[in-house]
Amino acid sequence: MNEEVSIGIDIGGTKIAAGLVTIEGAVLYKQVVPTATEGKEHIIFQLQQLIQSLLGEAKKIGFRTVKGIGIGTAGQIDFKNGIVRSGTSNIKDWNDIPLKKEIQQAFALPVWIDNDVNVVALAESYLGAAKGYDNVVFLTLGTGIGGAVIQEGKLLHGEWGGAAELGHMSVDRNGPACNCGYKGCLEAYASGTGIANQMKQYFTKKPELYDGPIENITARDVFQWANEGKAFAKSLLDEAIDALAYGTVNIIHAFNPSLLVFGGGIIDQHSWIIPDIQNRVRNLGISSLVQSVSFSKAYFGDEAGVIGAGYQSFLYRENVQKEGASYEG
Amino acid sequence: MNEEVSIGIDIGGTKIAAGLVTIEGAVLYKQVVPTATEGKEHIIFQLQQLIQSLLGEAKKIGFRTVKGIGIGTAGQIDFKNGIVRSGTSNIKDWNDIPLKKEIQQAFALPVWIDNDVNVVALAESYLGAAKGYDNVVFLTLGTGIGGAVIQEGKLLHGEWGGAAELGHMSVDRNGPACNCGYKGCLEAYASGTGIANQMKQYFTKKPELYDGPIENITARDVFQWANEGKAFAKSLLDEAIDALAYGTVNIIHAFNPSLLVFGGGIIDQHSWIIPDIQNRVRNLGISSLVQSVSFSKAYFGDEAGVIGAGYQSFLYRENVQKEGASYEG
Repeated sequence: MNEEVSIGIDIGGTKIAAGLVTIEGAVLYKQVVPTATEGKEHIIFQLQQLIQSLLGEAKKIGFRTVKGIGIGTAGQIDFKNGIVRSGTSNIKDWNDIPLKKEIQQAFALPVWIDNDVNVVALAESYLGAAKGYDNVVFLTLGTGIGGAVIQEGKLLHGEWGGAAELGHMSVDRNGPACNCGYKGCLEAYASGTGIANQMKQYFTKKPELYDGPIENITARDVFQWANEGKAFAKSLLDEAIDALAYGTVNIIHAFNPSLLVFGGGIIDQHSWIIPDIQNRVRNLGISSLVQSVSFSKAYFGDEAGVIGAGYQSFLYRENVQKEGASYEG
Repeated sequence: MNEEVSIGIDIGGTKIAAGLVTIEGAVLYKQVVPTATEGKEHIIFQLQQLIQSLLGEAKKIGFRTVKGIGIGTAGQIDFKNGIVRSGTSNIKDWNDIPLKKEIQQAFALPVWIDNDVNVVALAESYLGAAKGYDNVVFLTLGTGIGGAVIQEGKLLHGEWGGAAELGHMSVDRNGPACNCGYKGCLEAYASGTGIANQMKQYFTKKPELYDGPIENITARDVFQWANEGKAFAKSLLDEAIDALAYGTVNIIHAFNPSLLVFGGGIIDQHSWIIPDIQNRVRNLGISSLVQSVSFSKAYFGDEAGVIGAGYQSFLYRENVQKEGASYEG
């Protein structure tokens, strides 16, 4: 066998997944470890162990060429320079890390590092729900809300890679405070954390309505209560989805995409949210823009991070073309 | 003389300006006519007359080559196909016009048509305030609010050219209704029309505060009253600028620009708004993104439309490079 393979690594708050990825998006071998809680040196050590192990595995199953190492990680990533600029509160000390340089030096292989949502968008764009579309916006609804934008077939990075922070688009400057310091962000309304926080605040104001421990409430509880017909939960989710609809219209006005892809844990379990947003969006905003957009659910599940991360080696290395757009490493 | 020249045409609600533009952005000769109020056929006839006249003038002053005709117009423009999709209420019947085809057939010259704010952004990006910057967002505050985005040296058009409708970004889903049908748009708060409408609504609710004819109030009045220290006007402008600050943070989160350029009639007369927005933005949003952005006033005034429209002939015709980015016609 002499097919080429790439190492794709998905660094999350709870686990690091690493796999051997083919250009068709198959994951031939995968390892998962819990993310070290001791900080960056430990995580970099974990990455080196994983890469070492995957290189061995690639050899074992007969791949002559490992084209490179692609990493996707939470946080704000300087894509050009391969630096984790400011990380996420879920990973200790995960900031100011010249990760590309460190990994490249250790393994003498080309390395690409991008935001976790950006690499998921690559997987969906080249192999998944957005295949054949040139102008696409991705929203992932999970613990937080992440965004990614494909414009004319290319990821939109902005000046240093910080673009598409769409979870931190405010749709109400008098709205709820967000972890990021801003107000009325989509993430404050409609992420897992946001939904739980909104519910906690509601019960804190109306303690007579809930006799459990308020601090333990999760978004899952809220969806469950709404499902049982409880008005307070239904109204809270209605508000969250309305905020998402306004955010989506803002996104459509800003980017003029032909497709919106929704993914993440919340969508995996409640995909009815997509047509609900779509129906609201149709009645808001500039009709020539909102009427011409399709809505789709993400194709890949949990493995999208590894696949998209790994896909970077094929995409940037060989100037893979998507509908006429060329990529440069 | 054998220098090349381009015809640049700026189609606005009240006037059409057309000029001979050099690659350095000089306007060698200009004609201005009031925009025909009878609808599209009359406007197209005006355009043909203007072009004919400018071609004659180019010959007279010795230009061997007229490279092409570049048009900027209000409304939503299908850039790829050169079609005015949906126009502005300021120009009668200004929609569904295959303008590129009509003009190209009449004159056998290459023709480019883009949104008026996009062509202003070209002028600023290649010759003005944003020269040397690759990732820039433009906001023009006038009768309405327009936006344009330069990403990696190129105008962001989206799927068909409708991207960067940044005046119709909502920062309050419970905010004032906008002409576009949406709510809480920047344009509803901070355009000339928006400021005047807000003031009219305020006095309609509190008629005891104003004894003039409410329907005649303009944004100019509001600025004047604020200048005289009148609290209602100061508070209204404070609200407008706060909405702009939230919109600006949303824009920074979405596009990660290194420069924001503000222009248009309101900024021309009240450029203090720029540092005011900047100060507010510094305290909102994700710091790595908001702290790294510069703010600037537009360099060109009224002639930016003609210059930027005309510049299209040089830009797209010859694959003019801006910091490594190449353009294709």
